[in-house]
Amino acid sequence: MTHAISPSVRLQVARLLDATPRSLAARIVRAINVATILFGVAGVVLISDSVYQTLEPLLIDVPLLMFAVEYLVRIWVAPETHTTHGSAARVRWRWITSACGLVDGLAVVCLPVAWLLGIDAVQADMFCILWIFKLARYSHGLAVLGRVIRLEAEPLLGVLFVFVMTLLCAAVLIYLLEGRAQPDTLGTVPKALWWTIVTLTTTGYGDVTPVTAGGRMLAGLVMMCGIVVFALWAGILSTGFSQEMRRRAFLKTWDLVAQVPLFHNLGATVISEIAQRLRPCEVAEDTVVLHKGDAGDCMYFIVSGEITIEAEGQTIRLHDGNFFGELSLITGARRSATAVATRTTQLLLLDIADFREMAARHPELTTSIHEEAKRRVRVGYPHRDTTPP
Amino acid sequence: MTHAISPSVRLQVARLLDATPRSLAARIVRAINVATILFGVAGVVLISDSVYQTLEPLLIDVPLLMFAVEYLVRIWVAPETHTTHGSAARVRWRWITSACGLVDGLAVVCLPVAWLLGIDAVQADMFCILWIFKLARYSHGLAVLGRVIRLEAEPLLGVLFVFVMTLLCAAVLIYLLEGRAQPDTLGTVPKALWWTIVTLTTTGYGDVTPVTAGGRMLAGLVMMCGIVVFALWAGILSTGFSQEMRRRAFLKTWDLVAQVPLFHNLGATVISEIAQRLRPCEVAEDTVVLHKGDAGDCMYFIVSGEITIEAEGQTIRLHDGNFFGELSLITGARRSATAVATRTTQLLLLDIADFREMAARHPELTTSIHEEAKRRVRVGYPHRDTTPP
Amino acid sequence: MTHAISPSVRLQVARLLDATPRSLAARIVRAINVATILFGVAGVVLISDSVYQTLEPLLIDVPLLMFAVEYLVRIWVAPETHTTHGSAARVRWRWITSACGLVDGLAVVCLPVAWLLGIDAVQADMFCILWIFKLARYSHGLAVLGRVIRLEAEPLLGVLFVFVMTLLCAAVLIYLLEGRAQPDTLGTVPKALWWTIVTLTTTGYGDVTPVTAGGRMLAGLVMMCGIVVFALWAGILSTGFSQEMRRRAFLKTWDLVAQVPLFHNLGATVISEIAQRLRPCEVAEDTVVLHKGDAGDCMYFIVSGEITIEAEGQTIRLHDGNFFGELSLITGARRSATAVATRTTQLLLLDIADFREMAARHPELTTSIHEEAKRRVRVGYPHRDTTPP
Amino acid sequence: MTHAISPSVRLQVARLLDATPRSLAARIVRAINVATILFGVAGVVLISDSVYQTLEPLLIDVPLLMFAVEYLVRIWVAPETHTTHGSAARVRWRWITSACGLVDGLAVVCLPVAWLLGIDAVQADMFCILWIFKLARYSHGLAVLGRVIRLEAEPLLGVLFVFVMTLLCAAVLIYLLEGRAQPDTLGTVPKALWWTIVTLTTTGYGDVTPVTAGGRMLAGLVMMCGIVVFALWAGILSTGFSQEMRRRAFLKTWDLVAQVPLFHNLGATVISEIAQRLRPCEVAEDTVVLHKGDAGDCMYFIVSGEITIEAEGQTIRLHDGNFFGELSLITGARRSATAVATRTTQLLLLDIADFREMAARHPELTTSIHEEAKRRVRVGYPHRDTTPP
Repeated sequence: MTHAISPSVRLQVARLLDATPRSLAARIVRAINVATILFGVAGVVLISDSVYQTLEPLLIDVPLLMFAVEYLVRIWVAPETHTTHGSAARVRWRWITSACGLVDGLAVVCLPVAWLLGIDAVQADMFCILWIFKLARYSHGLAVLGRVIRLEAEPLLGVLFVFVMTLLCAAVLIYLLEGRAQPDTLGTVPKALWWTIVTLTTTGYGDVTPVTAGGRMLAGLVMMCGIVVFALWAGILSTGFSQEMRRRAFLKTWDLVAQVPLFHNLGATVISEIAQRLRPCEVAEDTVVLHKGDAGDCMYFIVSGEITIEAEGQTIRLHDGNFFGELSLITGARRSATAVATRTTQLLLLDIADFREMAARHPELTTSIHEEAKRRVRVGYPHRDTTPP
Repeated sequence: MTHAISPSVRLQVARLLDATPRSLAARIVRAINVATILFGVAGVVLISDSVYQTLEPLLIDVPLLMFAVEYLVRIWVAPETHTTHGSAARVRWRWITSACGLVDGLAVVCLPVAWLLGIDAVQADMFCILWIFKLARYSHGLAVLGRVIRLEAEPLLGVLFVFVMTLLCAAVLIYLLEGRAQPDTLGTVPKALWWTIVTLTTTGYGDVTPVTAGGRMLAGLVMMCGIVVFALWAGILSTGFSQEMRRRAFLKTWDLVAQVPLFHNLGATVISEIAQRLRPCEVAEDTVVLHKGDAGDCMYFIVSGEITIEAEGQTIRLHDGNFFGELSLITGARRSATAVATRTTQLLLLDIADFREMAARHPELTTSIHEEAKRRVRVGYPHRDTTPP
Repeated sequence: MTHAISPSVRLQVARLLDATPRSLAARIVRAINVATILFGVAGVVLISDSVYQTLEPLLIDVPLLMFAVEYLVRIWVAPETHTTHGSAARVRWRWITSACGLVDGLAVVCLPVAWLLGIDAVQADMFCILWIFKLARYSHGLAVLGRVIRLEAEPLLGVLFVFVMTLLCAAVLIYLLEGRAQPDTLGTVPKALWWTIVTLTTTGYGDVTPVTAGGRMLAGLVMMCGIVVFALWAGILSTGFSQEMRRRAFLKTWDLVAQVPLFHNLGATVISEIAQRLRPCEVAEDTVVLHKGDAGDCMYFIVSGEITIEAEGQTIRLHDGNFFGELSLITGARRSATAVATRTTQLLLLDIADFREMAARHPELTTSIHEEAKRRVRVGYPHRDTTPP
Repeated sequence: MTHAISPSVRLQVARLLDATPRSLAARIVRAINVATILFGVAGVVLISDSVYQTLEPLLIDVPLLMFAVEYLVRIWVAPETHTTHGSAARVRWRWITSACGLVDGLAVVCLPVAWLLGIDAVQADMFCILWIFKLARYSHGLAVLGRVIRLEAEPLLGVLFVFVMTLLCAAVLIYLLEGRAQPDTLGTVPKALWWTIVTLTTTGYGDVTPVTAGGRMLAGLVMMCGIVVFALWAGILSTGFSQEMRRRAFLKTWDLVAQVPLFHNLGATVISEIAQRLRPCEVAEDTVVLHKGDAGDCMYFIVSGEITIEAEGQTIRLHDGNFFGELSLITGARRSATAVATRTTQLLLLDIADFREMAARHPELTTSIHEEAKRRVRVGYPHRDTTPP
């Protein structure tokens, strides 16, 4: 691991460990990593059962060893994945203290620390459930959820306050109403809190139920309040979540739109509008994108990759920046050819409903598509590209 | 079943089996099909009870036979319903491997296969519950739901990940907190998972409840997390579902708008906007669409069919492309005539609120309606069509 | 009840029975009607308890008698409230067969019919719970809900189909998995359906719970499916409900906007937009609408009624079509006067956030308000109207 | 407390008690106040347990004394915080009868009144749970919730009516179906109401469950109705809540936008649009706003405070009205400098997705930002302000 050879090797390794891999090798590394985490978590779940405790070295120690190696490798390659200027040591320290670095670090040290603290072996193993957080690296959803909770902190706290207020008032009231009837289960306010939260969340275990008329009326009210509180919470979170997902999709599409020459001729307003309606989709090699004879409900723009159109014995190849499938949207006819991706291809999909709305509001879009199609036929392309479907 | 006669007969049969039938015969065929499925499913439910097991030949074998015949007929008529080019055999194979074909095929082979595998007769009959999927052919909702789940796969999986993470962490924690107090029900993590999922979904059977203070605090937290997770799930699905239904409605309306000549004079922007506000509705023969003397809260455009206006002894017939009911929207007066559909009629309904907004934003729409009304009176129509209500 | 006197008396009575009363007498009649219904429904609830069964003549028979009288009176006045042309008898028949008429009729005949059928007295009284539907006349919410369910019937049925499909498949599966372990509670599919619906709705009584590992996994899945199904249902209904309420509000505001002269000078587009932002509110006599010294967060337009402005010893009266409170929105200062309603007054409220957006998008609105204010001062008004707050 | 000295001292004290404090002393006073409330509420919860009843003087009497002092002080300073004209006594009376005043008053008198009424000491202490309402002063969420419930009263009542109707009808039906099978728990309608509300809210304690086939079918229906009713309630509340929060954010941003000179050059329409997209955020002293080398996903406008830009050895100070971070949005490059807040700074954040949409729709915004940046370099600033990141 001398400095003379490490940078290029380090870069190779860094690319293998990327969370959104492009090469086959990186995909395999990711698959192994995810499989190890799942195997490890399954081990944690099983280890608590005395039947499986003899398997501990396999179930817990093997994943732990792999995570330790992964952690050291990730520290080593940190300078390649983080563009912060400064010495390699400073960059590494920044990665160690980042969210990803802390999770990876905790995953490694949790068990040794538990042993050092003298915790019973089976209980110590339980700390390895933290391994599941390592999967967060591959989940966009979790990142979005975190951002939403941060952005909507104020209303969420407001509703939490309403929740706690209802909880405490209801607990005191049920204690006053039922405390003497059921001293064992509702005889103090802390005991009453258990009944209150079980009722307020409409879980309703049934281990404690009010028996007096007053207590039952209060219970009815508490159930209704619970629904209201959680409705507010749900409303805030789901609105924020869907806005944030839309924002992410817009940014992703915007970057792809810039790679399609057709859109360069359109005004910025049209581009901004179309970027909100295009849907990115990646198709694997040999996927049939369009079937000849199907009804046409969308058109496609190629961002990168290659699409082969098979129509009446003729084979045409389309490349980055071309589009296809627009004929069916304009004429309403069925697909006149089959389109197959000849390698992994990044497409932008424009739905028929959106196409019609866009075409009605911005006639220049349709004109632009027509002209581009004509120009292609006139100029000619390598491999005689044109757009029959 | 010679080739000389089959194509025309085959086309007739294909039309009888259409999922959106137009003729009376096709409606009857569909009704029989749906009734058989419901009868068969009811049979499956009852057959598990020893009282009804003697009825098995009637409850199970009769529907099974009918489905087998239906399956063979559908294979035979496949070339008429699918426009894929190629030999009849290839088209048939494509239908057999389509979603509909697989469901129909499974519905037929499930029971014989279960018998071959030597499964006990009553248990084998249970596989016939798959028959209910045959109804999916007639349900738009299911198709939309499937599409939404496909489109929103990424956020749904993100939330699923949060759910599984919460589930596992909570199960391990409750095992640590309550494992010793309740070894029978929470003594291992897999056992604890049962309590955790019952609590996280706020189902709360009450067969396992925490008894320690720490366990109860954790339980309160788990209930709150559960609500949050499902709120996100609910938000994503219901937003996607309503967008998808709106998209379907827009496409349907768009096709109908093209059949009303009045709209040809308007600009594409107005058409696109009005298509989002018109609501398609089909009325059966002899339905009273407007009652004389009612308050007017909408106007109608006729896509196809016939409407008879009965006003002061005079009877006027309106046909495809005409409109009626606009007077009340403009003047605010009550309906001055009764309108009755004389045969099955496809209408487009424009609500008063939408009419006012459209009229304010696009005065040409109102002008167009006025001019059309005048032109009709001037030119005259067969049966003296005009638009009094 | 001769024909010579009835029409004018009939009209008076009809106005007394109006659901949205304007006169004090009509309000009293409505209050008595609502009180009788609530008293009667409370009677139905209590009568099942043997303690109260001696009170039956008071609790049940008195309201029943009143409803019978009300029913006959409503039949008599039907020609005044319904504008359908035709003989009085035909109009009355139409009212009797309308939704309101059927509910009122059922409320009267339910008990006698139950007696005739020889049903036990206490059980017969229970049918009087139908009286609660008489309240529907006064509830807009119910009418809106009915309309939403009719409009969104297709997606609601789609989701219902998914629900029934999940229900049946889950019931068959739990029967296969747990039928032998718990033959008493899950030994047939109909029995299993009870557990399935209790779990699918996350109610979770806990009277039946799965005990095998397979059954518990299925239960977890069923709980999650239940949430998804109801999320869709909830999403469809709440979206439709809020759209429908907004539509109603728009129609109500639109009618009121037409009564404010200021808006006549503005273009139709601005009116349509402002009608969506104005919020109608009715204030009772002697209500203080604005407090001197308060922060100004909205302005008001008077549709009908009278507002008195008290500023520095001077008292100014504003009438229909005037507006007030705009100064604070423009300057950001606190209210400079107190405004009191001197009789029941219908106002249109424009919120500060909406005012700013409207002012930014349509400068002619602010100009119009300024000019109107100046013109008033120049021309003068009876009682020296002007708009200091 | 002579009139000669009180006004200035009174103003100082009033500022210390402000709910949105600016000075450090005021923050400390608020923290003490909140801590006392939380301590007092915790005391109320614990006091019901016999173990802690000896601590009553500490847990209850100390907070009570502090609240009494606070109440008197707040009455004294009322003329400083309320701008109503009139004598000090009148202003004080108005504060005492305001929502805040009533809550503070109740918090003080609840316990003495309970003692006077001769209520048992422990039960009397329970009334102190009202202290939690004192926290409402600091919670925006609660104020918003109250406003939403007032604004949406009509649809909420409509749904409440549907809920009560379903509840009563279901209770009567279950009484008819199960009353004879389970006379102890469902033998009268009031008893049946308990089962109905527990089922309608899907709480499902399981203490009463139907046993007949008819009762179980009804139960399934009631569970489904419950979900529908609460879905409507949830939908109304969460829509209203999010609208109201957006409205608040718009007003807050609008006031801040007016303090940024850049926006003065833009048209009112652009300002109104941008005010809806800017997000206010306050950063504490020494917060790192931008890290050199990070990806750029937003730009900032400074409303008040100071930001120090550290780039290549050079240190630049930015003040009120400046902006920074726009370069990364335009070029897509990573941050070229680190930005640190040198004192508490109020910023407006414009997200990259919003920046792109705004730039596409209103090219004058981008032009304006470019010109401002150029002008700054040309004219020069104290401390050589410019905007490298």
